[in-house]
Amino acid sequence: MKAIAPETFRYALEDGVATLTLSRPDRFNALTFDVYRELADTLDEMNAHDEIRAVVLTGEGRAFCSGGDVDDIIGELFARDMQGLVAFTRTTGRLIANIRKLRRPVIAAVNGVAVGAGAVIALASDIRICSEKARFGFIFPQVGLCGADMGAAYLLPRVVGLGHASELLFTGDIVPAEHALRIGLANRVVTPEECLPEAQQLARRLASGPAFAHAMTKQMLESEHTMPLDAAIEAEAQVQAICMQHPDFRTAFDAWQKKTPPTFAGASQPWQAK
Amino acid sequence: MKAIAPETFRYALEDGVATLTLSRPDRFNALTFDVYRELADTLDEMNAHDEIRAVVLTGEGRAFCSGGDVDDIIGELFARDMQGLVAFTRTTGRLIANIRKLRRPVIAAVNGVAVGAGAVIALASDIRICSEKARFGFIFPQVGLCGADMGAAYLLPRVVGLGHASELLFTGDIVPAEHALRIGLANRVVTPEECLPEAQQLARRLASGPAFAHAMTKQMLESEHTMPLDAAIEAEAQVQAICMQHPDFRTAFDAWQKKTPPTFAGASQPWQAK
Amino acid sequence: MKAIAPETFRYALEDGVATLTLSRPDRFNALTFDVYRELADTLDEMNAHDEIRAVVLTGEGRAFCSGGDVDDIIGELFARDMQGLVAFTRTTGRLIANIRKLRRPVIAAVNGVAVGAGAVIALASDIRICSEKARFGFIFPQVGLCGADMGAAYLLPRVVGLGHASELLFTGDIVPAEHALRIGLANRVVTPEECLPEAQQLARRLASGPAFAHAMTKQMLESEHTMPLDAAIEAEAQVQAICMQHPDFRTAFDAWQKKTPPTFAGASQPWQAK
Repeated sequence: MKAIAPETFRYALEDGVATLTLSRPDRFNALTFDVYRELADTLDEMNAHDEIRAVVLTGEGRAFCSGGDVDDIIGELFARDMQGLVAFTRTTGRLIANIRKLRRPVIAAVNGVAVGAGAVIALASDIRICSEKARFGFIFPQVGLCGADMGAAYLLPRVVGLGHASELLFTGDIVPAEHALRIGLANRVVTPEECLPEAQQLARRLASGPAFAHAMTKQMLESEHTMPLDAAIEAEAQVQAICMQHPDFRTAFDAWQKKTPPTFAGASQPWQAK
Repeated sequence: MKAIAPETFRYALEDGVATLTLSRPDRFNALTFDVYRELADTLDEMNAHDEIRAVVLTGEGRAFCSGGDVDDIIGELFARDMQGLVAFTRTTGRLIANIRKLRRPVIAAVNGVAVGAGAVIALASDIRICSEKARFGFIFPQVGLCGADMGAAYLLPRVVGLGHASELLFTGDIVPAEHALRIGLANRVVTPEECLPEAQQLARRLASGPAFAHAMTKQMLESEHTMPLDAAIEAEAQVQAICMQHPDFRTAFDAWQKKTPPTFAGASQPWQAK
Repeated sequence: MKAIAPETFRYALEDGVATLTLSRPDRFNALTFDVYRELADTLDEMNAHDEIRAVVLTGEGRAFCSGGDVDDIIGELFARDMQGLVAFTRTTGRLIANIRKLRRPVIAAVNGVAVGAGAVIALASDIRICSEKARFGFIFPQVGLCGADMGAAYLLPRVVGLGHASELLFTGDIVPAEHALRIGLANRVVTPEECLPEAQQLARRLASGPAFAHAMTKQMLESEHTMPLDAAIEAEAQVQAICMQHPDFRTAFDAWQKKTPPTFAGASQPWQAK
């Protein structure tokens, strides 16, 4: 299998945790066409790498991600016809789709400002650990565009409810971490120093968990979105029966009987319940 | 195009903001058959008026809206057969559908009590600015009816989550503004004096925004509700590509380069980011 | 009709309120195969009993429910083939489906720890009144399984939003009552002494309400989950028209005219608005 070695952002794998760090700090980690493409490709490839058990997304320097680069992308878009524009919006949407389709827990360490595409990347992550300096802005209307970008109008109501989502998507307001915490957009708010370490510590814990089961949890959170009750409950009956035939189920039972924490298949350390 | 000139409630258009004021203060702005019909018709017509860029719904006097008028409506319903009853419930449902289908940001200035149909009108609005005196009550069970009225059982779980929604719809309890704020039903709570001005100020800001893009945001918040992930992301790729061909996108880019706030097509004032 | 007389948990009916109490306090009310089956059967039968107008689920002793019994169930599962495993997961899913399909308001009095299947039982209830000592844990990953169990990945995002749900389902963390309150999983938190009385008082109030209408509210909260706007509003127009032909609607109107609280069909006491 091809090694994961992206060129347009930093990548590190340790203890089963892949950390992807946007690394154009002088541009507030703005996304270029190349970063969009390589991020989406990398997330897709990661699905095939069993040694990756949890993922952290973060940004270098003061910003998490300031969205599409104004010079590299926005200016260039005016030269495109409709076919070219749709090719671009599909590229950006593919990035978000691949975060949601990556069958690993994805934790955003939102170290600073997350606006535009940056806000949607954080939104598409499963869990958001935020610095006190984090700010979120779905600023699309401020650049003349609609709030339905890269799945934001699909995801945001599911995370914060329709009322708060409508306000954020119509106003494009940039809101601080405390507001994000209050409405359920941030899972936790910590000091700037703790942001990445806390996200990685949580990721390491999840990486020590049952990777096969976590992959199913991620899958089902999306698959069941449009299911009615009976279909969802049947789907979970099937998926949990599959998990019960995985060795991790036996591992946990044996560990419970021995009163020791379980070490799940492929994990580098035992699962520590909190 | 026919001018908008409703007879059963007050209507004003200023700076692109249409304010609809229920004006039967002596009846706590209870709805009659005529108000139901004219409200729904007016909201439908407004979709065709480009000069309307944002909407505020409010009530005159102490109440926002006390729901269906007991004398005019409730008493009369007992004389109806099933066909007549369904005709009535479809009339009320059409009002709510037309709030959701109006492709403008709709802000409820909830100045006082909002119960029954009044609570659902506020709920169907995109953003709720509430007076400290606002109270919300889905009081249907108290009048022998079910909580699934005018779309309340569809909308309320999306706004406040299923647990809070179930409690409000089963108990019919009237809850104060602070409770509404805590559960995400109120976007903000302000003093009674600030309620309408704050709603209109927000509406004016949105009216100075990209109207074409806002219309798409509103549409997609409903359209994507039942879509799975891939369909939603593809829908947003298409809709945002459309928005990128609208002059407002270029306007914003040019303004950004000149470091001035953009004045979007048809807006009476430049968009002010907050 | 067969009397309801379960053998594996306690059952009492008073003032229209059926209280089901898990009663294996020495095992923290762990579920056995027999309890799973009898609970699901009982909830199904209750739908046919008009004298049951509201339901309270609670646990005896210090726990609400600690999930599947490790000795009775978990150990036994390792002897099963896939067909046998799916038979089990369908049994557990059927319990949750039957809580959701019971057309009565179901109130969980979460007196203590609710983990694994116990957490999902509480989650599937319509309203959760929690003791300060209540704790919730979707601890499936800690036993090597996925968070998509018994409908948890379907229900939890609808109750607390996708961000909080993802964190709870990936970590399996056991969270205190205050956390549950903050994210909308608990409707209220009260002292341990008040937990069951408060839940039963609320249940008695709902039992004095319009049972036929409440049954419709419960039905529609599930039925509309996957509907788009227009279908949901039409469904509510139909269902409310049906409710308007039920005597309870007239009863409420007559009581309103006489300024007395209504006594709805079959209720043992008048409905008291709060």
